[in-house]
Amino acid sequence: MNFYPSEAQMLSEAAREQGVYIIGGSIPECQDGEEKLWNTCTVWDPQGNLIAKHRKIHMYDVDIPGGITFMESKSLSPGDKITVFDTPFGKIATAICFDIRFPSLLTYILQVHPDVCAFLLPSAFNMTTGPRDWELLQRMRAVDNQIYVGMCSGARDTSAQYVNYGHTLLASPRGDIISSPTPSDEGESIVFAKLDPSVMRSVREGLPLWRSQKYNVYGKLEGGDKYA
Amino acid sequence: MNFYPSEAQMLSEAAREQGVYIIGGSIPECQDGEEKLWNTCTVWDPQGNLIAKHRKIHMYDVDIPGGITFMESKSLSPGDKITVFDTPFGKIATAICFDIRFPSLLTYILQVHPDVCAFLLPSAFNMTTGPRDWELLQRMRAVDNQIYVGMCSGARDTSAQYVNYGHTLLASPRGDIISSPTPSDEGESIVFAKLDPSVMRSVREGLPLWRSQKYNVYGKLEGGDKYA
Repeated sequence: MNFYPSEAQMLSEAAREQGVYIIGGSIPECQDGEEKLWNTCTVWDPQGNLIAKHRKIHMYDVDIPGGITFMESKSLSPGDKITVFDTPFGKIATAICFDIRFPSLLTYILQVHPDVCAFLLPSAFNMTTGPRDWELLQRMRAVDNQIYVGMCSGARDTSAQYVNYGHTLLASPRGDIISSPTPSDEGESIVFAKLDPSVMRSVREGLPLWRSQKYNVYGKLEGGDKYA
Repeated sequence: MNFYPSEAQMLSEAAREQGVYIIGGSIPECQDGEEKLWNTCTVWDPQGNLIAKHRKIHMYDVDIPGGITFMESKSLSPGDKITVFDTPFGKIATAICFDIRFPSLLTYILQVHPDVCAFLLPSAFNMTTGPRDWELLQRMRAVDNQIYVGMCSGARDTSAQYVNYGHTLLASPRGDIISSPTPSDEGESIVFAKLDPSVMRSVREGLPLWRSQKYNVYGKLEGGDKYA
Protein backbone atom coordinates (compact mmCIF):
# COMPACT_ATOMS: atom_id res chain seq x y z
CA MET A 1 0.00 0.00 0.00
CA ASN A 2 1.23 3.45 -0.86
CA PHE A 3 0.82 6.62 1.10
CA TYR A 4 0.44 10.00 -0.50
CA PRO A 5 -0.15 13.23 1.30
CA SER A 6 -3.46 15.07 1.12
CA GLU A 7 -2.35 16.71 -2.16
CA ALA A 8 -3.12 13.40 -3.90
CA GLN A 9 -6.70 13.40 -2.67
CA MET A 10 -7.03 16.98 -3.85
CA LEU A 11 -5.76 16.03 -7.34
CA SER A 12 -8.21 13.13 -7.55
CA GLU A 13 -11.14 15.34 -6.60
CA ALA A 14 -10.12 18.09 -9.00
CA ALA A 15 -9.87 15.61 -11.89
CA ARG A 16 -13.33 14.19 -11.11
CA GLU A 17 -15.01 17.51 -10.52
CA GLN A 18 -13.66 19.02 -13.74
CA GLY A 19 -13.87 15.79 -15.78
CA VAL A 20 -10.24 16.06 -16.93
CA TYR A 21 -6.99 14.11 -16.87
CA ILE A 22 -4.41 15.53 -14.46
CA ILE A 23 -0.68 14.83 -14.49
CA GLY A 24 -0.08 16.30 -11.07
CA GLY A 25 3.24 16.34 -9.50
CA SER A 26 5.49 15.76 -7.98
CA ILE A 27 4.92 14.78 -4.34
CA PRO A 28 6.81 12.53 -1.91
CA GLU A 29 5.58 8.94 -1.78
CA CYS A 30 6.24 6.25 0.80
CA GLN A 31 5.25 2.61 0.70
CA ASP A 32 4.27 0.07 3.34
CA GLY A 33 7.29 -1.77 4.72
CA GLU A 34 9.80 0.47 2.94
CA GLU A 35 11.87 3.18 4.53
CA LYS A 36 12.38 4.85 1.17
CA LEU A 37 10.78 8.02 -0.14
CA TRP A 38 10.25 8.57 -3.86
CA ASN A 39 9.70 11.76 -5.85
CA THR A 40 6.45 10.75 -7.51
CA CYS A 41 4.11 12.19 -10.12
CA THR A 42 0.54 10.83 -10.04
CA VAL A 43 -1.82 10.73 -13.03
CA TRP A 44 -5.62 10.86 -12.58
CA ASP A 45 -8.45 10.14 -14.99
CA PRO A 46 -11.72 12.12 -15.27
CA GLN A 47 -13.35 9.73 -12.78
CA GLY A 48 -10.68 10.57 -10.21
CA ASN A 49 -8.88 7.22 -10.50
CA LEU A 50 -5.10 6.92 -10.20
CA ILE A 51 -4.12 5.52 -13.63
CA ALA A 52 -0.35 5.91 -13.52
CA LYS A 53 2.46 7.13 -11.37
CA HIS A 54 6.04 7.98 -12.18
CA ARG A 55 8.84 7.76 -9.67
CA LYS A 56 11.63 10.16 -10.71
CA ILE A 57 14.43 8.04 -12.15
CA HIS A 58 17.43 10.39 -12.18
CA MET A 59 18.52 11.99 -8.93
CA TYR A 60 19.44 15.66 -9.14
CA ASP A 61 22.87 15.55 -7.54
CA VAL A 62 24.67 18.58 -8.90
CA ASP A 63 27.27 21.08 -7.82
CA ILE A 64 27.64 23.81 -10.42
CA PRO A 65 30.40 26.28 -9.44
CA GLY A 66 28.85 29.71 -8.98
CA GLY A 67 25.44 28.15 -9.57
CA ILE A 68 23.43 25.62 -7.62
CA THR A 69 24.30 22.74 -5.28
CA PHE A 70 21.64 20.12 -4.66
CA MET A 71 21.82 16.48 -3.51
CA GLU A 72 18.43 14.86 -4.08
CA SER A 73 19.68 11.34 -3.39
CA LYS A 74 20.37 12.24 0.24
CA SER A 75 16.63 12.18 0.95
CA LEU A 76 14.96 10.43 -1.99
CA SER A 77 15.31 7.11 -3.85
CA PRO A 78 15.26 6.69 -7.64
CA GLY A 79 12.40 5.03 -9.50
CA ASP A 80 13.23 2.26 -11.94
CA LYS A 81 10.42 2.25 -14.52
CA ILE A 82 9.29 4.22 -17.54
CA THR A 83 5.73 5.58 -17.29
CA VAL A 84 3.25 5.59 -20.16
CA PHE A 85 -0.55 5.78 -20.00
CA ASP A 86 -3.43 5.66 -22.44
CA THR A 87 -6.00 8.37 -22.98
CA PRO A 88 -8.75 8.65 -25.60
CA PHE A 89 -6.52 11.30 -27.24
CA GLY A 90 -3.41 9.14 -27.51
CA LYS A 91 -0.66 7.55 -25.49
CA ILE A 92 1.27 9.88 -23.19
CA ALA A 93 4.61 9.39 -21.44
CA THR A 94 5.57 11.22 -18.29
CA ALA A 95 8.67 11.72 -16.18
CA ILE A 96 9.95 14.36 -13.81
CA CYS A 97 12.25 17.37 -14.33
CA PHE A 98 15.90 16.15 -14.42
CA ASP A 99 14.72 12.98 -16.22
CA ILE A 100 14.53 15.08 -19.42
CA ARG A 101 18.35 15.47 -19.42
CA PHE A 102 18.86 11.87 -20.56
CA PRO A 103 18.10 11.30 -24.24
CA SER A 104 18.15 7.51 -23.89
CA LEU A 105 15.12 7.63 -21.59
CA LEU A 106 12.84 9.00 -24.32
CA THR A 107 14.57 6.90 -27.00
CA TYR A 108 13.73 3.84 -24.91
CA ILE A 109 10.15 4.93 -24.20
CA LEU A 110 9.52 5.27 -27.95
CA GLN A 111 11.32 2.01 -28.69
CA VAL A 112 8.88 0.20 -26.36
CA HIS A 113 5.83 2.40 -27.16
CA PRO A 114 6.23 3.80 -30.71
CA ASP A 115 2.74 5.35 -30.56
CA VAL A 116 3.52 7.80 -27.73
CA CYS A 117 2.52 11.27 -28.94
CA ALA A 118 3.52 13.45 -26.00
CA PHE A 119 6.13 13.52 -23.23
CA LEU A 120 4.96 15.73 -20.34
CA LEU A 121 7.02 16.44 -17.22
CA PRO A 122 6.23 18.32 -14.02
CA SER A 123 9.49 20.17 -13.51
CA ALA A 124 11.24 22.72 -11.38
CA PHE A 125 14.34 24.06 -13.09
CA ASN A 126 16.13 26.79 -11.18
CA MET A 127 17.66 30.15 -11.99
CA THR A 128 20.98 28.54 -13.05
CA THR A 129 19.74 25.78 -15.38
CA GLY A 130 16.42 27.35 -16.43
CA PRO A 131 17.64 30.34 -18.47
CA ARG A 132 20.28 28.13 -20.07
CA ASP A 133 18.51 24.88 -20.95
CA TRP A 134 14.74 24.94 -20.24
CA GLU A 135 13.63 25.74 -23.81
CA LEU A 136 16.53 23.93 -25.46
CA LEU A 137 15.82 20.57 -23.81
CA GLN A 138 12.12 20.56 -24.65
CA ARG A 139 12.60 21.75 -28.24
CA MET A 140 15.32 19.23 -28.90
CA ARG A 141 13.59 16.20 -27.43
CA ALA A 142 10.58 17.20 -29.56
CA VAL A 143 12.67 17.59 -32.75
CA ASP A 144 14.59 14.35 -32.21
CA ASN A 145 11.52 12.28 -31.43
CA GLN A 146 8.91 14.19 -33.47
CA ILE A 147 6.39 14.26 -30.62
CA TYR A 148 4.99 16.98 -28.33
CA VAL A 149 7.21 17.68 -25.31
CA GLY A 150 6.18 19.90 -22.41
CA MET A 151 7.39 20.83 -18.95
CA CYS A 152 5.14 22.39 -16.34
CA SER A 153 6.87 24.56 -13.74
CA GLY A 154 5.77 26.17 -10.53
CA ALA A 155 5.72 29.96 -10.74
CA ARG A 156 8.84 31.89 -9.77
CA ASP A 157 8.95 32.97 -6.14
CA THR A 158 12.17 34.82 -5.44
CA SER A 159 11.56 34.63 -1.68
CA ALA A 160 11.57 30.80 -1.74
CA GLN A 161 14.58 28.72 -0.72
CA TYR A 162 14.55 27.03 -4.15
CA VAL A 163 13.59 29.55 -6.83
CA ASN A 164 11.71 28.02 -9.78
CA TYR A 165 12.54 29.31 -13.24
CA GLY A 166 8.85 29.19 -14.24
CA HIS A 167 8.03 29.50 -17.97
CA THR A 168 5.74 26.47 -18.43
CA LEU A 169 5.68 25.62 -22.14
CA LEU A 170 5.10 22.97 -24.76
CA ALA A 171 7.18 22.22 -27.85
CA SER A 172 5.52 20.97 -31.04
CA PRO A 173 6.81 17.90 -32.93
CA ARG A 174 8.88 20.26 -35.08
CA GLY A 175 10.25 22.15 -32.10
CA ASP A 176 8.09 25.27 -32.19
CA ILE A 177 7.29 26.69 -28.78
CA ILE A 178 3.73 26.99 -27.53
CA SER A 179 3.76 29.08 -24.37
CA SER A 180 1.50 31.30 -22.31
CA PRO A 181 0.11 34.50 -23.89
CA THR A 182 2.83 36.39 -22.00
CA PRO A 183 5.91 34.25 -22.45
CA SER A 184 8.08 36.68 -20.56
CA ASP A 185 5.92 36.05 -17.52
CA GLU A 186 7.56 33.64 -15.12
CA GLY A 187 4.69 33.98 -12.64
CA GLU A 188 1.38 32.11 -12.47
CA SER A 189 -0.17 31.44 -15.86
CA ILE A 190 -2.04 28.79 -17.83
CA VAL A 191 -0.84 27.43 -21.18
CA PHE A 192 -3.68 26.20 -23.38
CA ALA A 193 -2.52 24.02 -26.25
CA LYS A 194 -4.04 21.62 -28.75
CA LEU A 195 -2.02 18.48 -29.38
CA ASP A 196 -2.80 17.65 -32.99
CA PRO A 197 -1.86 14.16 -34.23
CA SER A 198 -2.01 15.36 -37.83
CA VAL A 199 0.86 17.79 -37.13
CA MET A 200 2.91 14.89 -35.80
CA ARG A 201 2.14 12.76 -38.84
CA SER A 202 3.02 15.56 -41.24
CA VAL A 203 6.37 16.22 -39.53
CA ARG A 204 7.21 12.51 -39.60
CA GLU A 205 6.26 12.09 -43.24
CA GLY A 206 8.36 15.08 -44.31
CA LEU A 207 11.44 14.10 -42.31
CA PRO A 208 11.17 10.34 -41.68
CA LEU A 209 13.71 10.02 -38.86
CA TRP A 210 12.30 6.73 -37.62
CA ARG A 211 12.55 5.03 -40.98
CA SER A 212 16.08 6.40 -41.34
CA GLN A 213 17.54 5.00 -38.10
CA LYS A 214 20.56 2.76 -38.71
CA TYR A 215 20.33 0.06 -36.07
CA ASN A 216 23.00 -1.91 -37.95
CA VAL A 217 25.47 0.68 -36.61
CA TYR A 218 24.42 1.52 -33.03
CA GLY A 219 21.77 -1.09 -32.29
CA LYS A 220 18.83 -0.51 -29.98
CA LEU A 221 18.67 0.08 -26.26
CA GLU A 222 18.66 -3.31 -24.64
CA GLY A 223 16.47 -2.39 -21.64
CA GLY A 224 17.67 -2.43 -18.07
CA ASP A 225 17.39 -6.08 -17.03
CA LYS A 226 21.09 -6.83 -16.89
CA TYR A 227 21.83 -3.67 -14.90
CA ALA A 228 19.04 -4.10 -12.33
CA MET B 1 41.75 0.10 -53.09
CA ASN B 2 39.73 3.28 -52.85
CA PHE B 3 39.44 6.03 -55.37
CA TYR B 4 38.94 9.62 -54.39
CA PRO B 5 38.78 12.54 -56.75
CA SER B 6 41.58 15.10 -56.96
CA GLU B 7 40.04 16.96 -54.01
CA ALA B 8 41.52 14.29 -51.72
CA GLN B 9 45.04 14.89 -52.99
CA MET B 10 44.51 18.61 -52.49
CA LEU B 11 43.43 18.03 -48.85
CA SER B 12 46.47 15.85 -48.18
CA GLU B 13 48.83 18.47 -49.58
CA ALA B 14 47.15 21.29 -47.67
CA ALA B 15 47.43 19.37 -44.39
CA ARG B 16 51.14 18.67 -44.98
CA GLU B 17 52.00 22.13 -46.20
CA GLN B 18 50.28 23.83 -43.25
CA GLY B 19 51.19 21.14 -40.69
CA VAL B 20 47.59 20.77 -39.52
CA TYR B 21 44.89 18.16 -39.18
CA ILE B 22 42.09 18.50 -41.74
CA ILE B 23 38.63 16.98 -41.52
CA GLY B 24 37.77 17.64 -45.12
CA GLY B 25 34.63 16.67 -46.75
CA SER B 26 32.54 15.32 -47.94
CA ILE B 27 33.38 13.86 -51.36
CA PRO B 28 32.11 10.82 -53.33
CA GLU B 29 34.14 7.64 -52.82
CA CYS B 30 34.17 4.47 -54.88
CA GLN B 31 35.97 1.22 -54.14
CA ASP B 32 37.57 -1.46 -56.31
CA GLY B 33 35.09 -4.15 -57.28
CA GLU B 34 32.09 -2.28 -55.89
CA GLU B 35 29.49 -0.43 -57.89
CA LYS B 36 28.55 1.64 -54.87
CA LEU B 37 29.32 5.27 -54.17
CA TRP B 38 29.64 6.60 -50.63
CA ASN B 39 29.39 10.12 -49.24
CA THR B 40 32.76 10.20 -47.49
CA CYS B 41 34.65 12.57 -45.24
CA THR B 42 38.44 12.09 -45.15
CA VAL B 43 40.71 13.07 -42.24
CA TRP B 44 44.37 13.98 -42.78
CA ASP B 45 47.25 14.38 -40.35
CA PRO B 46 49.98 17.06 -40.49
CA GLN B 47 52.16 14.70 -42.55
CA GLY B 48 49.45 14.43 -45.19
CA ASN B 49 48.44 10.87 -44.27
CA LEU B 50 44.85 9.67 -44.42
CA ILE B 51 44.13 8.71 -40.77
CA ALA B 52 40.36 8.18 -40.87
CA LYS B 53 37.39 8.34 -43.15
CA HIS B 54 33.69 8.47 -42.42
CA ARG B 55 31.07 7.18 -44.80
CA LYS B 56 27.80 9.01 -44.15
CA ILE B 57 25.52 6.60 -42.29
CA HIS B 58 22.08 8.16 -42.63
CA MET B 59 20.73 8.85 -46.09
CA TYR B 60 18.98 12.21 -46.52
CA ASP B 61 15.71 11.00 -48.01
CA VAL B 62 13.19 13.71 -47.17
CA ASP B 63 10.12 15.31 -48.66
CA ILE B 64 9.07 18.31 -46.57
CA PRO B 65 5.86 19.87 -47.91
CA GLY B 66 6.57 23.43 -48.98
CA GLY B 67 10.24 22.82 -48.20
CA ILE B 68 12.81 20.51 -49.71
CA THR B 69 12.67 17.15 -51.49
CA PHE B 70 15.89 15.14 -51.68
CA MET B 71 16.59 11.42 -52.16
CA GLU B 72 20.23 10.75 -51.37
CA SER B 73 19.85 6.96 -51.41
CA LYS B 74 19.06 7.04 -55.12
CA SER B 75 22.71 7.70 -55.89
CA LEU B 76 24.67 6.95 -52.70
CA SER B 77 25.06 4.03 -50.28
CA PRO B 78 25.13 4.31 -46.48
CA GLY B 79 28.24 3.71 -44.40
CA ASP B 80 28.02 1.30 -41.49
CA LYS B 81 30.71 2.41 -39.01
CA ILE B 82 31.29 5.08 -36.42
CA THR B 83 34.44 7.16 -36.98
CA VAL B 84 36.80 8.24 -34.22
CA PHE B 85 40.46 9.27 -34.49
CA ASP B 86 43.24 10.25 -32.12
CA THR B 87 45.11 13.53 -32.13
CA PRO B 88 47.67 14.90 -29.65
CA PHE B 89 44.86 17.20 -28.46
CA GLY B 90 42.32 14.48 -27.76
CA LYS B 91 40.04 11.95 -29.41
CA ILE B 92 37.69 13.35 -32.04
CA ALA B 93 34.58 11.80 -33.61
CA THR B 94 33.30 12.76 -37.00
CA ALA B 95 30.19 12.15 -39.09
CA ILE B 96 28.39 13.99 -41.88
CA CYS B 97 25.46 16.42 -41.85
CA PHE B 98 22.19 14.44 -41.48
CA ASP B 99 24.02 11.99 -39.15
CA ILE B 100 23.65 14.61 -36.41
CA ARG B 101 19.86 14.11 -36.38
CA PHE B 102 20.16 10.75 -34.62
CA PRO B 103 20.95 11.03 -30.91
CA SER B 104 21.77 7.33 -30.58
CA LEU B 105 24.75 7.73 -32.92
CA LEU B 106 26.60 10.05 -30.53
CA THR B 107 25.34 8.12 -27.49
CA TYR B 108 26.91 5.01 -29.02
CA ILE B 109 30.14 6.76 -29.99
CA LEU B 110 30.59 7.89 -26.37
CA GLN B 111 29.58 4.49 -25.03
CA VAL B 112 32.42 2.91 -27.05
CA HIS B 113 34.86 5.85 -26.71
CA PRO B 114 34.09 7.72 -23.47
CA ASP B 115 37.11 9.97 -23.97
CA VAL B 116 35.87 11.64 -27.15
CA CYS B 117 36.03 15.40 -26.60
CA ALA B 118 34.60 16.75 -29.87
CA PHE B 119 32.12 15.73 -32.55
CA LEU B 120 32.80 17.58 -35.81
CA LEU B 121 30.71 17.24 -38.95
CA PRO B 122 31.11 18.64 -42.46
CA SER B 123 27.50 19.58 -43.22
CA ALA B 124 25.26 21.26 -45.74
CA PHE B 125 21.91 22.13 -44.22
CA ASN B 126 19.57 23.99 -46.55
CA MET B 127 17.28 27.00 -46.32
CA THR B 128 14.41 24.87 -44.92
CA THR B 129 16.19 22.94 -42.17
CA GLY B 130 19.03 25.39 -41.48
CA PRO B 131 17.12 28.32 -39.99
CA ARG B 132 15.04 25.88 -37.96
CA ASP B 133 17.48 23.34 -36.55
CA TRP B 134 21.15 24.15 -37.33
CA GLU B 135 21.97 25.80 -33.99
CA LEU B 136 19.53 23.70 -31.98
CA LEU B 137 21.03 20.35 -33.02
CA GLN B 138 24.63 21.35 -32.27
CA ARG B 139 23.81 23.01 -28.93
CA MET B 140 21.73 20.09 -27.78
CA ARG B 141 24.15 17.31 -28.72
CA ALA B 142 26.79 19.35 -26.88
CA VAL B 143 24.61 19.80 -23.76
CA ASP B 144 23.50 16.16 -23.68
CA ASN B 145 26.98 14.76 -24.14
CA GLN B 146 29.03 17.55 -22.54
CA ILE B 147 31.54 17.69 -25.39
CA TYR B 148 32.33 20.19 -28.16
CA VAL B 149 30.07 19.82 -31.22
CA GLY B 150 30.60 21.67 -34.48
CA MET B 151 29.28 21.66 -38.03
CA CYS B 152 31.17 23.22 -40.94
CA SER B 153 29.03 24.43 -43.83
CA GLY B 154 29.79 25.66 -47.29
CA ALA B 155 28.96 29.34 -47.76
CA ARG B 156 25.50 30.30 -48.99
CA ASP B 157 25.23 30.66 -52.76
CA THR B 158 21.67 31.55 -53.70
CA SER B 159 22.39 30.85 -57.38
CA ALA B 160 23.27 27.20 -56.65
CA GLN B 161 20.85 24.33 -57.22
CA TYR B 162 21.20 23.32 -53.54
CA VAL B 163 21.49 26.43 -51.37
CA ASN B 164 23.60 25.92 -48.23
CA TYR B 165 22.43 27.57 -45.03
CA GLY B 166 26.02 28.49 -44.09
CA HIS B 167 26.68 29.65 -40.51
CA THR B 168 29.58 27.36 -39.56
CA LEU B 169 29.77 27.20 -35.77
CA LEU B 170 30.91 25.28 -32.74
CA ALA B 171 28.99 24.63 -29.52
CA SER B 172 30.82 24.38 -26.20
CA PRO B 173 30.24 21.47 -23.76
CA ARG B 174 27.64 23.64 -22.02
CA GLY B 175 25.91 24.61 -25.26
CA ASP B 176 27.31 28.10 -25.77
CA ILE B 177 27.83 29.04 -29.40
CA ILE B 178 31.23 29.94 -30.76
CA SER B 179 30.80 31.37 -34.24
CA SER B 180 32.52 33.67 -36.69
CA PRO B 181 33.05 37.32 -35.75
CA THR B 182 29.97 38.15 -37.84
CA PRO B 183 27.51 35.42 -37.00
CA SER B 184 24.85 36.92 -39.25
CA ASP B 185 27.18 36.29 -42.15
CA GLU B 186 26.21 33.19 -44.06
CA GLY B 187 28.98 33.75 -46.60
CA GLU B 188 32.63 32.69 -46.50
CA SER B 189 34.24 33.00 -43.09
CA ILE B 190 36.62 31.25 -40.73
CA VAL B 191 35.72 30.27 -37.17
CA PHE B 192 38.72 30.13 -34.84
CA ALA B 193 38.04 28.28 -31.60
CA LYS B 194 40.02 26.77 -28.76
CA LEU B 195 38.76 23.42 -27.55
CA ASP B 196 39.64 23.46 -23.86
CA PRO B 197 39.51 20.12 -22.01
CA SER B 198 39.31 21.95 -18.69
CA VAL B 199 35.97 23.49 -19.74
CA MET B 200 34.67 20.01 -20.50
CA ARG B 201 35.85 18.68 -17.14
CA SER B 202 34.30 21.58 -15.26
CA VAL B 203 30.92 21.15 -16.99
CA ARG B 204 30.95 17.41 -16.25
CA GLU B 205 31.90 17.88 -12.61
CA GLY B 206 29.13 20.43 -12.05
CA LEU B 207 26.41 18.45 -13.78
CA PRO B 208 27.54 14.81 -13.73
CA LEU B 209 25.21 13.42 -16.39
CA TRP B 210 27.36 10.38 -17.05
CA ARG B 211 27.44 9.28 -13.43
CA SER B 212 23.68 9.85 -13.26
CA GLN B 213 22.65 7.58 -16.17
CA LYS B 214 20.22 4.86 -15.11
CA TYR B 215 21.12 1.86 -17.22
CA ASN B 216 18.92 -0.31 -14.97
CA VAL B 217 15.95 1.38 -16.70
CA TYR B 218 16.88 1.79 -20.39
CA GLY B 219 20.05 -0.23 -20.72
CA LYS B 220 22.84 0.59 -23.14
CA LEU B 221 22.94 0.52 -26.92
CA GLU B 222 23.77 -3.01 -27.90
CA GLY B 223 25.73 -2.17 -31.08
CA GLY B 224 24.65 -3.12 -34.55
CA ASP B 225 25.77 -6.74 -34.93
CA LYS B 226 22.35 -8.32 -34.87
CA TYR B 227 20.95 -5.83 -37.37
CA ALA B 228 23.81 -6.08 -39.86
